[in-house]
Order: sequence, then structure tokens, then C-alpha cells
Amino acid sequence: MNNRRGELFVVTGPSGVGKATVLGRLMDNVEDVCISISATTRKPREGEIHGKHYFFIDRAEFEKRIGEDRFLEHAEYVGNYYGTPADFVEQMLEEGKDVILEIEAQGALKVKEKRPDCIMLFIIPPSFSDLETRLKGRGTESDEVIAKRLETAKKEFEYIDHYDYIVVNDDVDKAADEIRCIIHTSRYKTEKRKHLVR
Amino acid sequence: MNNRRGELFVVTGPSGVGKATVLGRLMDNVEDVCISISATTRKPREGEIHGKHYFFIDRAEFEKRIGEDRFLEHAEYVGNYYGTPADFVEQMLEEGKDVILEIEAQGALKVKEKRPDCIMLFIIPPSFSDLETRLKGRGTESDEVIAKRLETAKKEFEYIDHYDYIVVNDDVDKAADEIRCIIHTSRYKTEKRKHLVR
Repeated sequence: MNNRRGELFVVTGPSGVGKATVLGRLMDNVEDVCISISATTRKPREGEIHGKHYFFIDRAEFEKRIGEDRFLEHAEYVGNYYGTPADFVEQMLEEGKDVILEIEAQGALKVKEKRPDCIMLFIIPPSFSDLETRLKGRGTESDEVIAKRLETAKKEFEYIDHYDYIVVNDDVDKAADEIRCIIHTSRYKTEKRKHLVR
Repeated sequence: MNNRRGELFVVTGPSGVGKATVLGRLMDNVEDVCISISATTRKPREGEIHGKHYFFIDRAEFEKRIGEDRFLEHAEYVGNYYGTPADFVEQMLEEGKDVILEIEAQGALKVKEKRPDCIMLFIIPPSFSDLETRLKGRGTESDEVIAKRLETAKKEFEYIDHYDYIVVNDDVDKAADEIRCIIHTSRYKTEKRKHLVR
């Protein structure tokens, strides 16, 4: 991969849009990209591995790291902290890997503030009603929760101008190829390839 | 293709790098893209069609159009004018097509001055010696002409910072995919897709 430094891609989109599925497909078709691993104070579930699914750390350690500004963003959900470790991301970038941060929209905007050079992607469904269908199709959430998720999605759309690219997920392969193109294109920038011109 | 306006891509690179081959491959794999057609005062050769290979116009008409600033760039070679018609390019862009201008490096820099919003691509060979091999492999030019072309290539490399992207042609399919990614990525920009977010 030569001597280039990696690029940070922040990928977000409304709940139910299929972020994880698209990124899974992407990872089968792209090289030198890694997905960032979050840190959390929540206890590991069966089968979850430290350093693979999450970095599991205790509350005191997490708060110490917040004080040291070692998260690109962090938030608290139902009594547990979740955050993006700045040092892990930095290490991957240094190794020349592009790093993808899959993250909800509020966190994405926080990362953008801290790392204005990150490339922001927002995945949208082909239509709003399609999003509703997908959320209902999961069959895991009450109508009330779904209504709330749709309300949140509408609010997230208001911040669309903070994003560099909009990816449309009407087909997983197509959406994954869109992200692949965006990542690859960033590698073809003159400043990244100038060393090839002798 | 919806209501978007097309984007202008200027593609250049040293003589012998394989621009036409790469663009030919690209055109098989991309939609809503057209390659700009030059105007010239040279007489049509056997089989050449007006409006397909060139716009064939006479000298008086060409000079009139120069006076009317109707070329994005123009130059004179061995007694004939060649130029890129601004109105043809504009019409394609208006129709929502991305337009590719395959052009030599001096012309490319002139287009950039007139259309600062164009996206500039420079195709490079995997190595300088590879370029030499390719030029010699053509078997159509004298050693002297080849030496001159290589000298020109070196000078062109000095202007590399004027380009947005560097495409490496070590493999035609790969190089064509690189350009496809660059073109597609420009379509995913938030300003181009915002209308999809309702």
C-alpha cells in the first residue's frame, strides 16, 4: 500500500437503512480498509471478543480517557458508555489503512468537529416509506419505537449538508460499490499519488 | 438520470500512455457519459464522419468562432486548427451528461483556466521506462520523435499539481475502473443528491 496515510470515513444513516449489511458487503470487495472498533463499559455478551467486537473497559478507565480527550466521540446509553477510541483510529491511519466509522448521526457530527478532514457519508433508503417497511420487517420493535426511529430519521436529514456524500441503499451490492468508489477515489487524489510521478 | 447537471472531466497524460484505450474501455462500463468532439479545419480522412469523429469546419468559420470565444481551448498544428467547442460541451452538461475531454496537457491547462470547476485527471504509466517501451512498441515513430515525446512527458509531469487525480495505467481494466470511480463519486456528492432526501 506504499507510504500513504489512511483516510477517515464516517458512515451514518437512519436506523434500519442497512448500514451494517452494506459495510459487510463492502469489506468483501475492498483492501486496506478497516472498520473502527468502539470502546464500551457494557459487559461482554456471549461470544463477544475484546478488540474485535468492542474494547471492553471499566467505567473508571473510560472516564479517565474522556478526561484525556482520547475519544473522537462518546455517549452514554442506558447506563453504559460507548466511544470511538482516537488512538486506535490514529494507529490504523498511520499504517496506511482507511478507517470506517459506522456511527449514529449525532456522533458523526461530533467526529466531524474534531476531525474536519474526515469524509462524511450518509446512507439513505430509496424512500422514506421503504425505511418504514424495513423497520417493521425486522419484527423486533414496537410500533411506538418504530415511530420514534422514523421521527429521528427526519431530524437527521436536516443535517444532510454536513455530509460530503449521499449513498443510496436500494440494492446492497450497488450501495457497497458506491462506498468503494468513494474510498478508492480518495486514494487517486494527486497529493496521494504524486510520489508515483518521477 | 434525473435533473442534475453533468460534470466536465479533463483527461490527459503523456503520449503513449494509452488514453484512448482506457477511455474506450471506460465507455463500455459507464452510463450518461460522453466524450467531447473536437472541431478542426483539417479535411476529413476516409471514413471520418462530421459530428462523430470531428466537427469539420472551414478556416474562416473557425477563426470567427475563436473571436466569439466559442472554444474551451484551441491550437494550430501543421497548418490546421483544432479546438474544443464550448457550446457542444455545454449542451451535453445541460442534458445531465458527464463530459470527458481527452486532450493534450497544454490544452488541459487552458480548459482549467476557463472552467475552474472541471475535474482534472492525469493518466500516468506504471513507470517512465514503461512509457518508453510503449512508444517504441508502436513502431510508427523514429527514435528522435520518441525522445522528444519523452522529453515532453517530463515537462508535463511538472504541472501535476494542477490535476485533481492521478490514474495509473498498468492495466486497462483497472485504469478504466479508476476513472469510473472518480466519475461516479462526483455524482454521489451531497449537493447532487440532496433532492433524493425528502
